[in-house]
Order: sequence, then C-alpha cells, then structure tokens
Amino acid sequence: MNVTIINIGDELLLGQVVNTNASTMGRMLTEAGMAVGRTIVVGDNRKAIWQAVDSALHKSDAVLVTGGLGPTKDDITKRLLCDYFHSELVESETALENVRRIFAVRGFELTAVNRAQALVPKCCEVLNNDVGTAPCMWFQVEKGKSEATQDGLPHTVLVSLPGVPHEMEWLMQNRVIPKLQETFRTDIIINKNILTQGIGESFLSDLIEPWETSLPEDIKLAYLPVAGMTKLRLTARLPHDYPLSTFHFPLEGLYKIAGQYIVGEDCETLAELVHKTLTERGLTLATAESCTGGTIASQLTAQAGASVYFKGGVVAYSNEVKECALGVQHSTLEAHGAVSEETAREMAEGVRKRLGADIAIATTGIAGPDGGTREKPVGTVWIAVADATHTEAQLLSFPGRRRQQNIDRTVNQAFSMLIHLICQKH
Amino acid sequence: MNVTIINIGDELLLGQVVNTNASTMGRMLTEAGMAVGRTIVVGDNRKAIWQAVDSALHKSDAVLVTGGLGPTKDDITKRLLCDYFHSELVESETALENVRRIFAVRGFELTAVNRAQALVPKCCEVLNNDVGTAPCMWFQVEKGKSEATQDGLPHTVLVSLPGVPHEMEWLMQNRVIPKLQETFRTDIIINKNILTQGIGESFLSDLIEPWETSLPEDIKLAYLPVAGMTKLRLTARLPHDYPLSTFHFPLEGLYKIAGQYIVGEDCETLAELVHKTLTERGLTLATAESCTGGTIASQLTAQAGASVYFKGGVVAYSNEVKECALGVQHSTLEAHGAVSEETAREMAEGVRKRLGADIAIATTGIAGPDGGTREKPVGTVWIAVADATHTEAQLLSFPGRRRQQNIDRTVNQAFSMLIHLICQKH
Repeated sequence: MNVTIINIGDELLLGQVVNTNASTMGRMLTEAGMAVGRTIVVGDNRKAIWQAVDSALHKSDAVLVTGGLGPTKDDITKRLLCDYFHSELVESETALENVRRIFAVRGFELTAVNRAQALVPKCCEVLNNDVGTAPCMWFQVEKGKSEATQDGLPHTVLVSLPGVPHEMEWLMQNRVIPKLQETFRTDIIINKNILTQGIGESFLSDLIEPWETSLPEDIKLAYLPVAGMTKLRLTARLPHDYPLSTFHFPLEGLYKIAGQYIVGEDCETLAELVHKTLTERGLTLATAESCTGGTIASQLTAQAGASVYFKGGVVAYSNEVKECALGVQHSTLEAHGAVSEETAREMAEGVRKRLGADIAIATTGIAGPDGGTREKPVGTVWIAVADATHTEAQLLSFPGRRRQQNIDRTVNQAFSMLIHLICQKH
Repeated sequence: MNVTIINIGDELLLGQVVNTNASTMGRMLTEAGMAVGRTIVVGDNRKAIWQAVDSALHKSDAVLVTGGLGPTKDDITKRLLCDYFHSELVESETALENVRRIFAVRGFELTAVNRAQALVPKCCEVLNNDVGTAPCMWFQVEKGKSEATQDGLPHTVLVSLPGVPHEMEWLMQNRVIPKLQETFRTDIIINKNILTQGIGESFLSDLIEPWETSLPEDIKLAYLPVAGMTKLRLTARLPHDYPLSTFHFPLEGLYKIAGQYIVGEDCETLAELVHKTLTERGLTLATAESCTGGTIASQLTAQAGASVYFKGGVVAYSNEVKECALGVQHSTLEAHGAVSEETAREMAEGVRKRLGADIAIATTGIAGPDGGTREKPVGTVWIAVADATHTEAQLLSFPGRRRQQNIDRTVNQAFSMLIHLICQKH
C-alpha cells in the first residue's frame, strides 16, 4: 500500500520549524510495512491544502494529514475537510469528553475555544487522543471517488492528526497504524544499518561496488553520510506472507571488502552504538568537553538508561575551568595552549580520575566560525580517550568554518575513537 | 513569486534522516522575499521525481530540487532532468575543473566515479559549487512550456542542488538566491518573533484575541508552541516597492494585554535570548545539569561567541559527581535525595563558586520514561538559579513520561528563569 503524508503549517514552509513529523511518521510507517510514496508540505492556506488533499487521495491508498487542528485561528484543516467531504461540523461526544478529562487533570477551566475542539465533520470516525485535546479523525473514502487505489483494496483512507509532535506520535502508535494494518494488506519491510567511519562516501562506493552489484533485486542500498560518518542502509521489501526465518542480508561480502571501516550495525547513530557498547560491557564513562560544549553528554543522556554507565562530565569552556575542574596544569595551558594534544590528554585523564570512571573522553578545538590563528586555524580539534592504563590522542583538521558541522563531526569522531578503544582493550 | 521545493531521497521518506534542507531553504527564501508555496519529498524513484518536477513546473515560478546528485548509485536526478529537458549529458569543463580542484585540496586521487560528477545536461547552466564536487544546475524553461507562471515574468526556473546540507546552504546563499533575485521581482517579507512563557497556547489565544482581530490584513499571526514555550510569529508581506521606513508591527496592544508573559522579542529560541542578554550585560554563566545532561550547555555553546559569557558547566549525572565536582553535601543527598530543592540550590551555588561565574543555573529531575517513585514521579524536576546574593528554586511537574520532551521543557523553563533573574536584578 502507498501512503502520502501531508504536513500543514506556514511555520514549516517559512523554515521556522523543522518538519520532524514527516520523518517520525515515515519511520513508524516503514517499520509497520507501509511505503510512504511522497510527503507534501503546504501552508495554512485553504486552496493549497485542498489541492494537496485532492491530489493525494487520487494517488494513494491512505493519506495522513497533520496540523491545522489546534484551537487557534490559523488552524483551518477541520473546516476544509468538512467541506471537502460534503459533511457538517457536529460536536462529538467522544471528543468533548476527552477535552473535559484533560482539562480536569490539568486543573484548568474549559473555554469556548477549547470546547470548539470537539467539533468534527459528521462523516468521520473520531480516534480518541489520550494525550491531547485535538481530535484525530478517520475518513473512509468509498472506492470510485478515488480513481487510483490499489487493486483489490476496499477503501481509500484519510486521517487527520494534530501537528503537535508527541500527540501525533502517540496517535500513530496507538490508533492510526493498528487501524491501517486492519484495513490494508501491508508488505514486510526490513532495514539494516551499517555504520562506517574513516572513509568518504565516494571512496566507499568505489570500494564496495562489486558487492553492491551482486545484491538481489528486492534489496536496496543507500548511503547516508552524516557529520563525518557514512551510514549504509539496506532495505528489503518482502510480500506479507514471506517466510521471515529464511531471510538474511548478504553481509559477508561487505565485511570482506570494507570490514576495517565498519564500526557497528543495527544502530541509527554512533551515540546509540556507544550507549549499547558501554551498557553491554558494564563500563562507566566521563566526558570533558571544550569545543563540543556538552553535545557528547547530551547525546548520550538523551537515551533512557544512560545513568547506568554515564557518571557525568565537565564542559570546560574557559581555561580556568580546565584547570580547576579537570586539573589541567597551568604550565600545560601556557606552553601548549588550550587546543593541544597535551591539554586534551590532561583533560581526559583528569576527568576520568576526578569523576571515578573507567573510561573518559575529551575534546578541545576551534569550532569556528572565528577564533583561529595561523598555527591553529578554525577546524583544528584534539580528541583524547583515556582508560586506567592508556591515553590516546588524535588531531582533526576540518576544512570548513561551519560551527555546528565542526562540532557534530568532532562528536562522531570522538564516539568512534571511544568504540575502538573499548573493542580493542575491554 | 512562488517557489516549490522538491527534496529527493528514500532516507527522507523512510524517516531515517530529518529533512532539515526544507526548513533551511524555506528560511533563506523567506528572508530573501520569496514565498515557498509547497515542499514535496519523493524517493529515489524516477517516476515519482518526474511527476513531482512536472507538476511543480506547472504551478510555480521557480522549482528548487535537492538530492540525487552524489557519486553513488542511488542518485538519479541528473539523468532524469536530462531526459525531461530533452537534452544530453556532456562533460562540463567548469564542473570538472571544480572536482579536480577539490580533490587536489584534499590530496585524493580522482576516480572515474568522481569524474562522472562533471557530466551535466547540455541545456543547463552550471553554477559553481565552491564547497563540494556535485554541480549545481540552473535550467531556464521557456514560457509556454509551463502554463501557470506569474504574469509578466519571463521564465520558469528549475535549479538542481546537491542534498548535502552545507553544500546546499552555500549554493543557496552565494549562487541561487542572488540569481533568483536578478530573474524575478520579489516581495518584501518581514518577520517578528515574540517569545512567551508561562501560558498555554489556547489561553494565550483567548487572551489576545481582541488584539489579533485588530491586525491589518497584510499581517499574519502564527502560534508556534515548542517545549513549554509559545512563540508568536508575525509576518508581513509587502510589495517590493513599499517604503520600509514607514512600516511597524502594532505591538502596543499585545504588550498591554499579555505583557507579563512576554520574555523577549526577535529571537528564534530562548537559548538565543539568553545568549543575547548575557552578552549585552557582560555577565558570566556556569551550569550544573543533571536531568538535562548537557543540553543547556550545548544549546548555548552552539552559538558563536558563547565563550564571552559561558565559563563552563558540570554534567552531574551521578550522586558522586554532584558531591565531588559541585560540593553538594552528602547529608543533603541523604536527607532530601538528588531530586530536591535543597540539592538544586546547592548545585547552582556550588557550580557558581567553583567555576567563578556571576550567575549559575542547575537542573535535577526524573526525565523518564522510568525511574519515578510515588513521591517523585517521572516528570518531577527542580531548577535553581543563583547569583552572588540570592538563590531561587522552582519545582516543575510535567505530566508526561517522554524523556526528550521533559528535557526540552526543563531547558526552556531554566532559560526563562535565568532571563527573569537577570532582568530583575542585573
């Protein structure tokens, strides 16, 4: 089955909000065996929404619409869908009860604006939203109204969801995906991620071409370069009755050719791989971050269960903090500067001892866009990893002046060094 | 003029990569006075790309396409555009020279795959890409081929850009936007952000309705709720010859009704507002983060110039670190626990003194999804801010168990408390 996603919101077109809803929905639908054929973003504009809905209904088995259901004036989806389906707005008892319940829990009084959230087109089915006041609406379009539905399927479906990310996500998980799976016959999709580091996308592509060419037709390969790392994604699409126990991805050939660049499998990010590796091996970690400014710590602690291995860290932005909180020697900073191999090593060793961790990682560098010198231009970064017996340091020289890119690449390189150290020695 | 953005990539539809290109392009085009009417995402699929390009060319003055230009096999845009415009692939001397230059800088040898990047459709103009090997291609479509261009404009334009975010951004800034502005007559767009905190979207909407209703027609208002904060965005679209010195947003009425909830103007985020406020007032900051795990520090240090005011921080994830790195008393942790007003206060005071900052902020809480108790359920968070004479603490009780949401809301509430403290006392 083929799904079109329509995300509504001027803020998305204006670029003031990143459209994470599209990727969240794409990921959830893919995991549930449904194929997203296209995503469309339109503004809070009746004509544009109407056209997008109409065109999508003619090209897809299901159309999922987010946004435009809030209580404020710039939200217009509900009235438009009511007109599109030649229906009328009625107060839904289910939706009103839900709004009342949520306001009672929060201890707020119900306003007229809030109550209006319970108005829905008469022709839709309300899917109850346990985590918010905006209703989720399921419209079943009779075959014949939509010309291009998949053969043998009884309906085209349009679902309208709120644009608030966590409400959308809850509804997708608990209401929309189960109901779509009941309604349609879905394919089985299997993904496999391989994380590589230390080789550029085009070199990797040249290297593994013989293996890539040998892949069967139902397996697709994609290259996803992110901040100095290239993720290979293999996707297999199998019919719904495929015997899963007989399926495997042919990875032997890949490891034979490019094994030295592979740092891990089955993770989306290096932070996830570090999280998994440290948890499995029962090792603790401390961080000392200068140029990455807390990003390493925040990427690790964003994952539930980080407290099992993460002791804590120091964001040592100023030289005083490098001295007082990490024990970097004043003479080291004087002689070699804050961005140096010696400082990086002392940061890693200092934070490991002071915070009582098995392993520590430290970063110090010039992220940019300014602050470079002739000897140490923007993009100069030192990373050090230390355990009880050994400290290792690495110099990175990024060509660009883009601050966030230099930070993100440093973080990934630090994670990669950490994984190497752990896998070699622990 | 009306722009359609088409982003190509299976990884976007599968939700493995968030489509930041769309928001970056939307923001840049908006700031340059161009209106994005719609964004379309399609996979690495010839038929889907063809349909999207064809439909967009008929509905827009300019179509900007990203993705599918890399050296790897899943990239197909270039051949498709060549066929669509009935052209042939030729080796572009400009593009080849550029590929050669970049490989020389990096000290790599040119492979056949890389050299193929210099092949472009004969009918396009190559816009030189100083920061990458993929060419940017400008196609001018004669009027008549496209039915619905804006009256009086000579052309419809299609531009194909690489999907790598920093290459796309550099090309937009330095090549594409200047050339679009030469080619089309663009409107003037003015945005104004008002950051509010401490009031939900629907209550705010009720409160300011009289003011909202009084806004002139050429000014649009949008509500952008993010992690416990609501950003109001006013957008004015003015004709290209409007006398800008006479324009102002009518904000007096808004301040009269809702002034107490407004924390700042002209910033996208509270982190940006904190950055601005601390820089302007010459105050220094230190952070002590438990449940936010370094996110406060990383959001501040993501901004160039943070070293002016940010001394550093401690990510005090374990109790030992709260004691050894921040000086929280063992007896405090024993008597009140890590998530308590007393611990939050001692964390803020401790980090302020140890790192020698004017002001400090501390967070400690249970972000979830697990780890709560009956007395302290998931979502219980204490925040404290301290200066030399005064410490203030606040209890937050978030209803949800979603880890990232609880972290993000804590960060925003911490920034808001910080701004209040600074504005009241410094």
